[in-house]
Amino acid sequence: MDSRAITEAFSESLPLTGNIEPNLECAIRHVLDNPGSLVRPRMVYQVATAYGLSDSSARDLSIALEYFHTASILFDDLPCMDNGLERRGAPCTHVVFGESGTILTALSLINRAYGLTWRAIADSARDRQAEARMYLEQCLGVQGLLNGQSLDLNYSELPHTLATTERIARGKTVSMIRLTLVLPAMLGDSTVRDLQLLERIALFWGLGYQIVDDLKDVLQGPAETGKTAARDVLLNRPNIAAAIGVPDAAKRLERFIALGDRTLQILLRSRPSMNFLNLLRHDLDAELKRVTQRAMDVSEGSLL
Amino acid sequence: MDSRAITEAFSESLPLTGNIEPNLECAIRHVLDNPGSLVRPRMVYQVATAYGLSDSSARDLSIALEYFHTASILFDDLPCMDNGLERRGAPCTHVVFGESGTILTALSLINRAYGLTWRAIADSARDRQAEARMYLEQCLGVQGLLNGQSLDLNYSELPHTLATTERIARGKTVSMIRLTLVLPAMLGDSTVRDLQLLERIALFWGLGYQIVDDLKDVLQGPAETGKTAARDVLLNRPNIAAAIGVPDAAKRLERFIALGDRTLQILLRSRPSMNFLNLLRHDLDAELKRVTQRAMDVSEGSLL
Repeated sequence: MDSRAITEAFSESLPLTGNIEPNLECAIRHVLDNPGSLVRPRMVYQVATAYGLSDSSARDLSIALEYFHTASILFDDLPCMDNGLERRGAPCTHVVFGESGTILTALSLINRAYGLTWRAIADSARDRQAEARMYLEQCLGVQGLLNGQSLDLNYSELPHTLATTERIARGKTVSMIRLTLVLPAMLGDSTVRDLQLLERIALFWGLGYQIVDDLKDVLQGPAETGKTAARDVLLNRPNIAAAIGVPDAAKRLERFIALGDRTLQILLRSRPSMNFLNLLRHDLDAELKRVTQRAMDVSEGSLL
Repeated sequence: MDSRAITEAFSESLPLTGNIEPNLECAIRHVLDNPGSLVRPRMVYQVATAYGLSDSSARDLSIALEYFHTASILFDDLPCMDNGLERRGAPCTHVVFGESGTILTALSLINRAYGLTWRAIADSARDRQAEARMYLEQCLGVQGLLNGQSLDLNYSELPHTLATTERIARGKTVSMIRLTLVLPAMLGDSTVRDLQLLERIALFWGLGYQIVDDLKDVLQGPAETGKTAARDVLLNRPNIAAAIGVPDAAKRLERFIALGDRTLQILLRSRPSMNFLNLLRHDLDAELKRVTQRAMDVSEGSLL
């Protein structure tokens, strides 16, 4: 499935037929017409096909997980949560269609996402189906994404430490990467060992990506916006770089990349078709280089 | 499953184990400790066992549908929707735990509800599973509950007619009653004819219950609160009795009860184990008598 096919599938997998209330229809259209980078569904599709899922199951699962992710962003941007104004180059849905319209849109995506996941899972072996539905529930629910979001919202009450920020990252970021890497393999012909290795990669890369995000936030302040403090710190949001400092955060990112590399090499020995994951690893490395360069620029700038 | 068992199952089917963020845990506990009348899950359980589902599937499905319903109420009560203050004899969840905590609680219930439905469905025949997952998606999604909620929220822009109010009632009220009566039968040994009859009963009773609610709202004003207008009219909310008048609404309710009776009698000929539905029909009739009496009291009161 190429980029265009994924974009089309994202836009068209929630059929808006029949007599839908116009405000709801417009809000859903707004979301379906403004996809993100769609890196996630591409990856889900590749993992799924590498582990032998059919084209249609791989496709359903990739769009389903992107709909879950998009719904989580719609909620996250609400005034009572992160109060975002812009997302994916367009005004946030709640800015244009109000809070209630946004909530109903997010719930429409979630409802469709479960339907698509269900259909994707129906072809797998019975024990794999049961394992997959429990895994999905765990990653999205009070043990996973929802817990991470609640910790995030209540961060001001918690100690601003590495442990807290990484606990939040495990809930929010790692849960979605676990679904991306592990769930499609679980439904296919993976071994228990494959799943263990994918779990480890999801953890290292999830925490790694969170550090990249946090470093960008901390470093963008002086260099880009002229503000003296970064947004996360200003708003009392969890940020690993703010908790342990930029140099230690960069070192930790390097370590996660190395651990991820080692795990990926083991996986590739028995499953060479997963080689596309190397590309993602290069992305992470490129991000590391960019933030390291930025850190040097900022530190020079502060000497002026 | 008796009343106590249902209350326990409602309270205990969303396990709060592990390291859950305390605010989220308290908000979920608040909801699980304040169930409604639990008429719906009792009915789901009875339909499911009448159509041959196992005790555990019937139980899972009954709690799942009550969790979906409870989540819809949590969203419905939010300030951006109906702005409720009290529910089930306790302060609304958002009043105590804030909007974000309430949204995460509702999403926790939804996530668990899909998990329970999935488990309940897994034992049924493969074609019945596919039919059931599409039916659930249709009743909850943009063709059903979510559309009804969006119409409800945008009622001020719509013509205040019988057609509009019943379209909203079909989306909001009838969708949940369809799930209650039809979904459990669909998973069991029902015939196509059984499902058609249950669809009709769900429609007549769903619209009937909505008229009861609307009549109560219109009639409570002068008699109970001393206000001259009812809440729905004051807030520009859909209300069938306000749209066509109290006498016509009462007549329409009588007609729906008669149509429901006729359909139920046909169903009972081939499926006598569904006789418990007669009890529900008597409830509806008792409500009709109460609102008719109230209408007479109010009309006498207005002569004073």
